[in-house]
Amino acid sequence: MMKVIKNTIEKDWSLLMKRPSLENKDLEETVKTIIEEVKLGKDAALIKITKDLQGADLNSLQVSFEEMREAEVSIELKEAINLAKENIEKFHKAQRLQEEIIETSPGVKCWRRSVGIEKVGLYIPGGTAPLFSSILMLGIPAQLAACKEIVLCSPCDENGNIHPAILYTAGLVGINKIYKVGGAQAIAAMAFGTETIPQVYKVFGPGNQHVTKAKELVQQMGIAIDMPAGPSEVLVIADETSLPKFVAADLLSQAEHGGDSQVILLSDNESILEESILEISKQLAVLPRAEIAKQALQNSKVILLDSLEDCFKFSNQYAPEHLIVASENANQHIRKVINAGSVFLGNYSCESAGDYASGTNHTLPTNGFAKNYSGVSIDSFTKKITFQELTKTGLSSIGKAIEIMAEEEGLMAHKNAVSIRLKEISDV
Amino acid sequence: MMKVIKNTIEKDWSLLMKRPSLENKDLEETVKTIIEEVKLGKDAALIKITKDLQGADLNSLQVSFEEMREAEVSIELKEAINLAKENIEKFHKAQRLQEEIIETSPGVKCWRRSVGIEKVGLYIPGGTAPLFSSILMLGIPAQLAACKEIVLCSPCDENGNIHPAILYTAGLVGINKIYKVGGAQAIAAMAFGTETIPQVYKVFGPGNQHVTKAKELVQQMGIAIDMPAGPSEVLVIADETSLPKFVAADLLSQAEHGGDSQVILLSDNESILEESILEISKQLAVLPRAEIAKQALQNSKVILLDSLEDCFKFSNQYAPEHLIVASENANQHIRKVINAGSVFLGNYSCESAGDYASGTNHTLPTNGFAKNYSGVSIDSFTKKITFQELTKTGLSSIGKAIEIMAEEEGLMAHKNAVSIRLKEISDV
Repeated sequence: MMKVIKNTIEKDWSLLMKRPSLENKDLEETVKTIIEEVKLGKDAALIKITKDLQGADLNSLQVSFEEMREAEVSIELKEAINLAKENIEKFHKAQRLQEEIIETSPGVKCWRRSVGIEKVGLYIPGGTAPLFSSILMLGIPAQLAACKEIVLCSPCDENGNIHPAILYTAGLVGINKIYKVGGAQAIAAMAFGTETIPQVYKVFGPGNQHVTKAKELVQQMGIAIDMPAGPSEVLVIADETSLPKFVAADLLSQAEHGGDSQVILLSDNESILEESILEISKQLAVLPRAEIAKQALQNSKVILLDSLEDCFKFSNQYAPEHLIVASENANQHIRKVINAGSVFLGNYSCESAGDYASGTNHTLPTNGFAKNYSGVSIDSFTKKITFQELTKTGLSSIGKAIEIMAEEEGLMAHKNAVSIRLKEISDV
Repeated sequence: MMKVIKNTIEKDWSLLMKRPSLENKDLEETVKTIIEEVKLGKDAALIKITKDLQGADLNSLQVSFEEMREAEVSIELKEAINLAKENIEKFHKAQRLQEEIIETSPGVKCWRRSVGIEKVGLYIPGGTAPLFSSILMLGIPAQLAACKEIVLCSPCDENGNIHPAILYTAGLVGINKIYKVGGAQAIAAMAFGTETIPQVYKVFGPGNQHVTKAKELVQQMGIAIDMPAGPSEVLVIADETSLPKFVAADLLSQAEHGGDSQVILLSDNESILEESILEISKQLAVLPRAEIAKQALQNSKVILLDSLEDCFKFSNQYAPEHLIVASENANQHIRKVINAGSVFLGNYSCESAGDYASGTNHTLPTNGFAKNYSGVSIDSFTKKITFQELTKTGLSSIGKAIEIMAEEEGLMAHKNAVSIRLKEISDV
């Protein structure tokens, strides 16, 4: 099923890196129409669209206290979610900016203060796979950033219910504004506000093509988004110390995400590649989502390269969302990683760990965006405001330089704002 | 010329906050055409457009070593630029991420590493006002972030020359790939690359409407940009300890930027407002860019509010690019600032200080984007990559939780990537 590509030369790499493209001309029109409907019709439009698409008759868009209280999940799941929450909190807490005042010249103090974005919206996909783990990944940094208003939208089922694991997790991280809206209509509702759903300044979260396109469109209208998105992907670099059955399991765990997921396996060791392919077939046979995984494997590549150096070079050009360095010596290669969303080092650091419970965020740049974007962190939920305070001494020490530069740029009023103060200082 | 607005009530504030709108339907078409021309025609298209728009006949798009060497600026200007560079370096150096390994569970180590975006492009406006200060504000953090390739585009004059202060400053911060291209064509060139100009992953810098629109459009095509942009603006909060002539000078230094700049003055003290207005007329009379400033003052507002609390409330709703707290007690109000790009505290912290030489960055969110974006910092030039390393003990400690969560989300291959490893561990 998967073929090993050998004897490739560097100038052909870009072809091998081509991601499955998602051209869909109709998509933009469809999503634009939905956004307009929601902007105009607000709550009524949301209720109508939810009836049409989910088949649910909603009296209220908001999840009630009763629904929150009645959301039942097993003790074992609660404990798992709680453990994940603790780790994610520990890792993200350390990202908080320590204010540090820098005195750049005598009497010139400058610093940055991190302030939570006041209103943020989280989108959580529902349906067959209720991605409650994404609530941890978005809700925890939002709370740590002290965002004042956190709004969550997630689609309901045909009975108007949201999966209890979603409600439990939202409650656990302290989110109580939860709305039964999915798809592009949810993004539009949070971007522009309705009678019930508060407008937010930034929208986060994964979703299907409609959701992604809606985020792209509202960004053009001034609403910030977490990052541009595309299908999920993993690149595994294996060497002779890799364990093929682990490599196969990791590739499959990415492949089961969706038919458009992409997995790439690189190695300088041919037998590891061949054993990994055999393991994939074996493990695939017993997977419930085997059909999806098979489809994804069509887009996928197993590539033999001359050296581990070449593997990292290839990886940096591809810029994978997830990079697994499946080697006992992974630590030696850290500095070689230039472009990647999240990196998993060694044979026991599987991607699932970071997807759920190790503490790192799983909202990561896909589609090559690891070249110019970071994954979600506490930074994503804050603005960093700069402050400065100049004493008279401070302005005296840098005033002359400002006057000269402003004059050279032809901005005399800029110069004058300094001159008028320096005169006051020297007059006293 | 400026009128004091009194007796306003909070629900009318949003009208007062309305920014001058820049509807221009033709702009998008014009800019799209330019981008397409550059994508197709590359260097030849750039040379043609530069001939058409700047009237310059270019043999070479790139600034030569000779041109760099011959760029002459006065010693006094050099010293001013050098001082500014030192302060900007000091302030931005402190922004570098300290790597910290967090052991979230026993055997589970997670950390972030900051890696410079490999290829970045800086746009520097030229023409009448050669904004060499922006080279410091963008070039210094780019260098501190260790971006490997830094490309700079700036328009030349009709003789094909770039202002010597721009060349001097670029040389000082170690940028040697400088191209004589301005406007939307420069943004297109950096976004897609030409024979001469390298393609970059992220584009930075101020510019006119064409440049701003081009940045917006290339962002939709996958190139990151520093932030969305709009006209520059300042909001001053004055109390009874403000000095009206300083307030007036600060408002004018913003107003001279462009006819579409906006300045807002708020106070709880009517006589301070009136004195400030008188001072504006007086100072305006002697300004070379008085006509521009007058035009900007048309869009501007002087508003008397009931209390300083209300002034900060208004300011946070407006989210100014620059906020000057013109008060001897400015320090007491720091915590009230929620939305602003950069804040200037006290009577001697004029905006020009931050524009040039105090050390803070002057590339800031305008147009209300201070609600959801930060100004440029070293963060803007880096990606933060997460790393994780789990030992066998690590996976044993969180593996069960991952299995349970993955199963609940219906992702059995995710679960299996853990199970297969836990089995290996227990078998040994």
